[in-house]
This record gives sequence, structure tokens and C-alpha cells, in this order.
Amino acid sequence: MDYNITIWKNSKKEILDAKKGKNLLQLLNENDYNIDSYCGGEGICGKCRIKLISGNHEITNAEKDLLTEKDIDKGIRLACMVEINDDLEIEIEDKDEIVVMTSGNYNKYEINKEFNKQCISLDSPTIKDQRDYTKRIFDKLAVDKINYDVLKKFDEINKGEELTITSKKNKIIDIEKGNKKNNLYGIAVDIGTTTIVLYLFNLHEGKEIDNFSIYNPQKKFGADVISRINYAQKNDNGKENLKLELIKSLNKGIDKLAEKNSINKKDIFFMTIAGNTIMLHTLLGVDAETIAKAPYIPLFTDRIDIFPDDLKININEKGTIRLLPCVSGYVGADIVADLLTINEYLTDKINLLIDIGTNGEIVLTKGEKIYTCSTAAGPAFEGANISFGMAGIPGAVSKFKLDKKIDYKTIANKKAAGICGSGLVDIIAELFRNGIIDKQGGFVDEEKVDENYREYLSTYKDFKAFRVVGGKETKTGNDIYLTQKDIRKVQLAKGAIQAGIEILKKESNVTSEDIDNVFIAGGFGNYINSHSACTINLIPRELEDKIIQIGNAAGTGAKICLLNRKAIKITDEIIKNVSYIELSKRQDFTQKYMDSMPFA
Amino acid sequence: MDYNITIWKNSKKEILDAKKGKNLLQLLNENDYNIDSYCGGEGICGKCRIKLISGNHEITNAEKDLLTEKDIDKGIRLACMVEINDDLEIEIEDKDEIVVMTSGNYNKYEINKEFNKQCISLDSPTIKDQRDYTKRIFDKLAVDKINYDVLKKFDEINKGEELTITSKKNKIIDIEKGNKKNNLYGIAVDIGTTTIVLYLFNLHEGKEIDNFSIYNPQKKFGADVISRINYAQKNDNGKENLKLELIKSLNKGIDKLAEKNSINKKDIFFMTIAGNTIMLHTLLGVDAETIAKAPYIPLFTDRIDIFPDDLKININEKGTIRLLPCVSGYVGADIVADLLTINEYLTDKINLLIDIGTNGEIVLTKGEKIYTCSTAAGPAFEGANISFGMAGIPGAVSKFKLDKKIDYKTIANKKAAGICGSGLVDIIAELFRNGIIDKQGGFVDEEKVDENYREYLSTYKDFKAFRVVGGKETKTGNDIYLTQKDIRKVQLAKGAIQAGIEILKKESNVTSEDIDNVFIAGGFGNYINSHSACTINLIPRELEDKIIQIGNAAGTGAKICLLNRKAIKITDEIIKNVSYIELSKRQDFTQKYMDSMPFA
Repeated sequence: MDYNITIWKNSKKEILDAKKGKNLLQLLNENDYNIDSYCGGEGICGKCRIKLISGNHEITNAEKDLLTEKDIDKGIRLACMVEINDDLEIEIEDKDEIVVMTSGNYNKYEINKEFNKQCISLDSPTIKDQRDYTKRIFDKLAVDKINYDVLKKFDEINKGEELTITSKKNKIIDIEKGNKKNNLYGIAVDIGTTTIVLYLFNLHEGKEIDNFSIYNPQKKFGADVISRINYAQKNDNGKENLKLELIKSLNKGIDKLAEKNSINKKDIFFMTIAGNTIMLHTLLGVDAETIAKAPYIPLFTDRIDIFPDDLKININEKGTIRLLPCVSGYVGADIVADLLTINEYLTDKINLLIDIGTNGEIVLTKGEKIYTCSTAAGPAFEGANISFGMAGIPGAVSKFKLDKKIDYKTIANKKAAGICGSGLVDIIAELFRNGIIDKQGGFVDEEKVDENYREYLSTYKDFKAFRVVGGKETKTGNDIYLTQKDIRKVQLAKGAIQAGIEILKKESNVTSEDIDNVFIAGGFGNYINSHSACTINLIPRELEDKIIQIGNAAGTGAKICLLNRKAIKITDEIIKNVSYIELSKRQDFTQKYMDSMPFA
Repeated sequence: MDYNITIWKNSKKEILDAKKGKNLLQLLNENDYNIDSYCGGEGICGKCRIKLISGNHEITNAEKDLLTEKDIDKGIRLACMVEINDDLEIEIEDKDEIVVMTSGNYNKYEINKEFNKQCISLDSPTIKDQRDYTKRIFDKLAVDKINYDVLKKFDEINKGEELTITSKKNKIIDIEKGNKKNNLYGIAVDIGTTTIVLYLFNLHEGKEIDNFSIYNPQKKFGADVISRINYAQKNDNGKENLKLELIKSLNKGIDKLAEKNSINKKDIFFMTIAGNTIMLHTLLGVDAETIAKAPYIPLFTDRIDIFPDDLKININEKGTIRLLPCVSGYVGADIVADLLTINEYLTDKINLLIDIGTNGEIVLTKGEKIYTCSTAAGPAFEGANISFGMAGIPGAVSKFKLDKKIDYKTIANKKAAGICGSGLVDIIAELFRNGIIDKQGGFVDEEKVDENYREYLSTYKDFKAFRVVGGKETKTGNDIYLTQKDIRKVQLAKGAIQAGIEILKKESNVTSEDIDNVFIAGGFGNYINSHSACTINLIPRELEDKIIQIGNAAGTGAKICLLNRKAIKITDEIIKNVSYIELSKRQDFTQKYMDSMPFA
């Protein structure tokens, strides 16, 4: 190899070999550094910051545009812009551990016995009772099939002793000596575009034991699903890489949960997975390309059961990995899981459900009918493409108020590092309420601004901007701004959602007055201030009183599928009743979208 | 290694290494020579003949007892008695290719679509029809599940072209380009204790294409099932060896059938297997020990589906190996298959079914009720333990008549090599009819024998004997005899069957007059002369007119399971209605058995 790349992270050093001309971001991500790269390494998002300690790299225009002078002076560079032509020594910033919304609004359900462990002893055979050993088990339990391996295992077993029989539906899949019936576990998973959450359950007791959250490692290939499909198309093994990264993370989560709770991974039999259609396609390593372009056709949407070995997921090889069903390319299993969570409201209420994640999916239910659509809200609310945007992790400005001076809160009360989705909505709502921006979203002239707030008016990278946190209070010492450009991004996102809601109301012939409940799902949906959301018309103002925040409902739906034996029937029912409204080709959507940009 | 063992077979030479003291029979069978050894190498059956060309081996008493002086002079020895203590050069006799009864009494059935290949083209997706690709297939075919591997395969396929979809029940298991719907095969198998038959079918057309027969390679471990269970118990890896030998033979059959008919083994998806309970246990390599001793409990009797890979059977890995269900340890899936063959008679007729193979299983059906028992007929009718006994292969005396002189026929009109089951029954019937043996089975005094036949009276190995074929007409040049001892063996066998019939009649409250049909199954059952069988009371004399020979009905039953979609339901029904009568502990059986020895 041509060059040595010395990498410092958390005071640990690693030296990698690199060929001349190799891209630094690629090198780092191939070596599991999981550097953020929302734009997929195109020099647009400015997230893949590293600190260059020594070695030659000629700074690019993209870096000059995306980094402050101060940053550049400190040696900060963008890894995606560094073509390796020298020995380099770099430092990667430590990241705070991820904390995402893992609780959900769910109750205890009737325990699913799809997988079951039961403890029995066999009677002694006699000339009058010549039933074979297998039938003796069948007659004691509600099973009538047996796996070949289990027959082979019988030789090791003394036929008089206490046995634990593991069954999968009506088939015996394992036999163990002694009473092991409590050793039966399952994991519900929500694969979000940005974060993955695993919930560990004891399936014998139907009890949640623990959970584990991790960033979606695919984000190094792009922040949104389209960038990832592009990555898969443009790179050899792209699909396979997206898959392997996800599976590595799932296995890491399984390892951690098993280790922490002292359970054997072989006792984990069932895994249910919710996620959007593209996440599920990438999990399987199959082609999602046709979802990216009109007419947006997925390869599959139905519920699918897979053997763990087929995906190399490290749970019991006879277990089941169940992917929840999707509706269409842009209304995925995450939304079906949301609907499962609010299933009890579906028949006799008129409900609006909004799940704002990397996309914005909207559902309107009326009687048995379920109308859905998906809007390209973009990852703005997850911090991508926003100058100081970041995920909802410690240090993110998550609440903001103007009351003569600025009053803000960060997650975990850490020094401010950026702005997350709920903070973004709060800030824009407060700027609008206080007349600092007008209903078209533009900054008003300085003289029209309340003098208390004039000092915060500034510019950032040639855009008018509002200083949200001064350098003295931030982690990096740099000011944190919200710019005119950022506001436009949020307007695009919220306009799309608002227009989507209008189209569904029109399709289902429902008015705002008819709507009984407005469910807000998604991690973001749990932190968001409803009043702020209504102030900027992200959610129609007249519905403010009907808002119920249901947190990470996709995860909750996956839990219900893990636990509740009726879940399959209910999801089948949901899928049967759902109509997907494709917005992209509708003239009326384009019109409403344009109309929805303003804040009032 | 200590010694070189030079082996000649079919004019081909092989040299094996051997350790001092190694048993020659073991060495040969470890190297796939498949030498017959009905007694399991105990020096009792005298079947493992080899010719010693050079090298030192001290002849044993067992060899002196079991071989003629002429044989000994020619260098014939018993491999099981040879302990290797010198370089040896030996010759193994060439065997005629096996010809067993492979045809059966079965008609064309409604074709089973458990596995199916269908040819379709997909419509182009549009914005108005956004169904996913998988759903487009589901909507065209009667399927609603898809295998993970198939989803992966979609990438290689142009979604507009003609596709062949392979399904297993309601699940898609393969997708191919072009029209391949005719490439769908299945194999029905009958694993007899002595012979194995494979029947190849095109499952798209429901047409039998070819068949292949082969000796059961386990016979080198013993002629009957009990010897094989003993072998499995006494030897490390005994169970595994029994299994591997069977599977090697099945794979050989599959190879031959595929090669001869130019088909791809990957297009064979379904295999149904009939066989007695112990054969099916040994096929799976599981413990059959508890079947051998009271209370005779099998590990399993239910129908079982296994993935080909689990048994390393070389058909499509997504196919199914289906073992037909058994009734008890000694009434196996072969008898269930027999019953399936005569299913149309079951409800409104009273039927007796006798399957004489290595065991003698008897069934009596009356209305819905099915009574069964198994008698230890022993392998006498398959030639084992009979001085000149042999299987029904070319050269076996299969028909015999006394009409002033001897009139006999051999299979394939080859030079006589021994006597098979049907020949045995003919000879004894003729000896009895002509007063050469009395009704107790003993040879009468010479002066009471018709003078035409006196010349055939002789002795063989200290037993009174009847010369069946003179040395001039035999393959080896040696006379072929039927001895007093052989007659006793047949009496034991036929007495057991006769007593079994009596017990079933008693249990079901049926008289011979009530019986409508007597079905004789088993390869032997097709060659046997009904009149002879009735003469010696193997089958009650009064039933002679009701006899229907149905050939290898076990194979026919396996075919029905392969082809007929109703077969599962019918076998379930049979199993539900069957009562197994355990004879071993019944006082009345012992009495009837003693009473049944005489021929009249």
C-alpha cells in the first residue's frame, strides 16, 4: 500500500494502509468508523468532518463553502473531499451515545404462542399402550409435526425424565432435558432510516426486558432512502453492503441485549421487524431501484417470514424473522405498525395519523377505509440539510422560546451542539409568532423586529440568519444559527405534509371538524411541541386540541406483532382496507403544495 | 498397513491395504463390495462366499459346515470367517443385475400440485397500478408466499419476459427465465428390507417415466430388520452407517434415473418413501432399538416431511422428502401404502391383505375398521436361511411342477442358481401334493414315494433332501436341494401367517366366507402361484378363488402419494381407523401358531 493513515478516536490510535487516490470517507467507512454522510459523499451536507493533524491535502471549494474559517484554521476538513496523496494523521470527533425514543404507548397483550416452550414427562410405554414416543408428545401438546433434528436428538434423552419441548406453531423444533420453559425470547425491531431500536421480550411471560438503540449504519451511504438506493445502484455490491451493514448492527444489538441480560442467543426464536419499504428491501439486499423512479414499484410488500440463517442473523436457526407488511413503496411496514398501535380507534373514529421521520407519511381512517399517502418531507426534521441540524441526541436544541430573551433547552442539558427537529419547529414558530419572519417565511426588515431580538439577527454563509445560541454556550465555541435557507427547507417539508393532509381529506370526504384524533408518531413526534407545530401549520391549526403523541409507534407495532397472536389477522385487515394515494402525479397536490408554504 | 488384499471382480482388480487381524467381510463392505451377509457376519447363513486364489487362511468349522467339499476344493471360503493374517488374492463372484417387480396395479390419478411450475408474463406497472412485483405473481397464481432466495433472484430477471414460477403449496420457491414448466419431476420410493425401487415421474404430466431397482445395501449388516438393529446397537456409528448406506443407494438411483432420462436433478422436487417402520427409522439414522424389544415402541410413526439437505439426498434443496406414516413398530408405511392401493375396496368390502416380505404383515378390513398384525415370517420367502435360497433375481427357480418328472422355470430363463420364494412355495406344494412329504412336513419313507420321484430323494448336509435341479443344469455345476430343514423354516413362516389371519378374523368377528377379497402384496406376492400357496395353507385354502395379486403395492402406494393430492387425507383416514393387534403376548396366537404348522 502507498500511504499510512493514522486515525485518532477516543484517544485510541489506529493506522490504516491506503492506496494513492483513495477517498478518505470511503476508507473510514470501510473500516467501520461510521462517519455521517447524509449526502452520500457528494460534498453537499458537510457532515463528514474530521480534523487533519498532519499530512498534505489541498482544501477544496466545497470545504470552503461548508466549513467556517475558524473550522478550517483548526484543521477541520470534510473526509469525502480528501483524496489520499500523502501519509495523513487525523482525528475523529467523539460522538455522544445515542438516546432515542424507545418507549411507546402500548399495553400488555395476549401472549403469542407461535413459539412455545412446554415442560412434560412421558409415561412409560406398555404392551397395551404402544404409541410411539413422538405421538406421546403430540398427545400432550397441541402439536402434530416434528423436525428431523429433534428426532435425532431423542437418542441422547432418557425417555422417562422431564423434558422441555420447543414448538413453532404445530411443529416441535427442539427438545431439551429439564425445565427450561422460561428461556424463550423474542425481539421487536424498528428499523428507521436514521435509527434502529431493538426491544427484547421474554415470550413466556410476555414481558419487555430491555431495549437497545443504534444509529442506522446505512446513513454513511446517505441520509435519506433515495441517496441509499442511488448508492446501491452506483456501487458494485452496493445492495449487499446496505444489507450487511444493517445485519451487522442487528447482530450487535442482539449481542448486547443477550450479554447484558445473561441470556443465550439460541433462546431467541422470534424477531419482528417494522421499517419503511426501502429499509426492508435493503435489509434483504434486494433491488429497491424501481421504488425510486415512477411508477415506484417495490419488489414485495407482503409480510414475509425468513429463516435467521438466510440473513445470518444470530438467533436460533429454527426461529423466524418476520417482516411486517408494507402498503406501497412509500408507505411501509412502519406505518402499518403505527396503525396496529391505534387499532382500537380505527373502526368507530375518524383518525388522522402523521408519522414524521425521514419521510412524512399521512393516514386518514374513516370507518373501515384507510387512506394513505407519503410526502417527500425530506430529512429536514431529522437535522439533515439544515445548517446546524442534528439528530435528537444529547446537545441538540430541542425546545426554544422567545420571551424578551432566548430561552432554550438541549437534550440531556448538554452544551448546545446543533438543532434537532423539535427545536427547529419551536424556533420557526417563535420567530413567526414574534414577527421576526413573516408568513411567507422571509426575515422582515431589521427595523420591524422587536428590539429585544435585533441582536440575534445576523448572516451566515451569505444567508440572513438568527443566532440561536451564542458561541459562549456551545460545545464547539461557534455560534449556532438558523438561516433563511433552513427556513425554506422546513417550509418545503411542512408544506408537503400539509398538502398531503388536504388531499386525504378531499379523497375521504372528511373535514377537519369530522376528525376525532390526530396521532403524531415517530421519535420526533414525541418531542415536538404541538402548539409550535400548529403555529407553523405543520399540523392544521384547528386540530391542535385533538393531537395525541404516540411516540415510536412503529416499534410498538413490531412489539404487538411479537406478542399478540391476533396481530397477523389485524395487519391483514389493515392491508386489505388501505388505499394508497399517489401524490406525485396529481395536479391538485401540486397546487395545494404551493398554497401550503406560508405559515398562515 | 500390514497386508495387501488383491480383489478381482468382473475381471477388474483392486488392491486394498489391511491391518493384521482385520475381518475380510468388513474390509470388503467398507470398500463398497456389498457382499451378502444375511446373518450379519456371524458364520451362520453362508452367503458371503468369496474365492481364495492365494494366501493363507485356516479353514474354520463354520466354513466346513456351510460349504460343500467341492466348493472348498475350488477355494470358496466365507469372507466373514477370514481373519486377515497374510497377503490375500481373492475373487468375488459377479452378480446378475437385480430385476425386481416394479410394476403395480395403479391407475392414473389426479395430479398433485403440491409442487407446481407455471409459466407467466407480468404486466407493465403504471402509476394507476402500483402493485409490487411479487403481488403481480401472487395475483396470477394460487400462491401468497415467497422464499427469500427467490426475491434475491428477481434482480437477474427482466420483469417483462416470460417466467416460470415453481411453487411448493402456496409458496414460490423458484423463478426461472423462459418456459420450463415441463421440468418438474418426482420420485416414489419403496425401501424394502431386501430391495429398493425408485419410480421416476414427470409431475407436470403425472406420467411414470422410468424406474430403478437396487439391493438394499444394509443387507450386508444382516438380512432381517432385527439383525440390523443389533448391528446398530453393537457398532459405533452403527445407526449412521445404516443411514449412509441407504442414502448412498438412493442417490445412486437418482443419478442413474437423471442421467438415463437426461433430466437435471435440480428439477426433482418431491420424493415419497414407503417402507417398514424400521427401514424408515434407519433411513433417518434414529434409534430403532426400542422397536426390537417389548413393548416394541418406535420413535415415530407419523408422516414426516424432511428437507433433502437434511438427509443429503441430491434433489432440489427446496424439495420435500415425505415419509409415509406407519402404524406401529411392525406395521409400517409399506402396509399403509398397500392399503392406499386398495383404498377403493376399503369401505364396502371385507378384505384380507397379506404382504409377505421379510416380515409377514396381515390386514383385515371391515367397514371403516382396519385390523392389522405382524408375524415373524422371517426372510425365508426372500431366500435367507434356506440352503439354496436366493432373492427373485435371474437364475432363481421360481416355478416348479412334478409331472412324472421335474418341470421348473427360472427367472429370465438363466441357468439355475438357487430357489426364490415362489419356487419354494411351488416345490413344497408339489412335494406335499405328490405325497413325498406328509402333512406334518416330514419326508415320507422312500418306499412310499412314487417311483418316478425316488431318484430325487437324497441328503444334503445330514438332512433329508429333494434334488430340485441336478448339477448339469445349474450355474455352479452343483446340485440344488430342498432339505428337511428348509421345509421346517417355511412351515414356521407360513404357520405364523396362518395364525395371524386367524387372530384377525377372531378380533373382527369375520369368517372366511365373509371375506370378499384376498390381496397378496409384495414382490413375492406377484410371482407366487396362488394354488400352491393355498395347497400348503400359507393362505387359507377356502380363499383361493378370492386372491388378487397386487404386486409391489408399497411402491404403488408411494406413487399415489407422489401424484394424488388426496393421498394425505386418505392415509390420515387409514391411520385413524387402524387397530394394531400385538400378537407376541397372546396365548391364543401361540396356540394357533402351533396348530398351523401342518399343511392340512
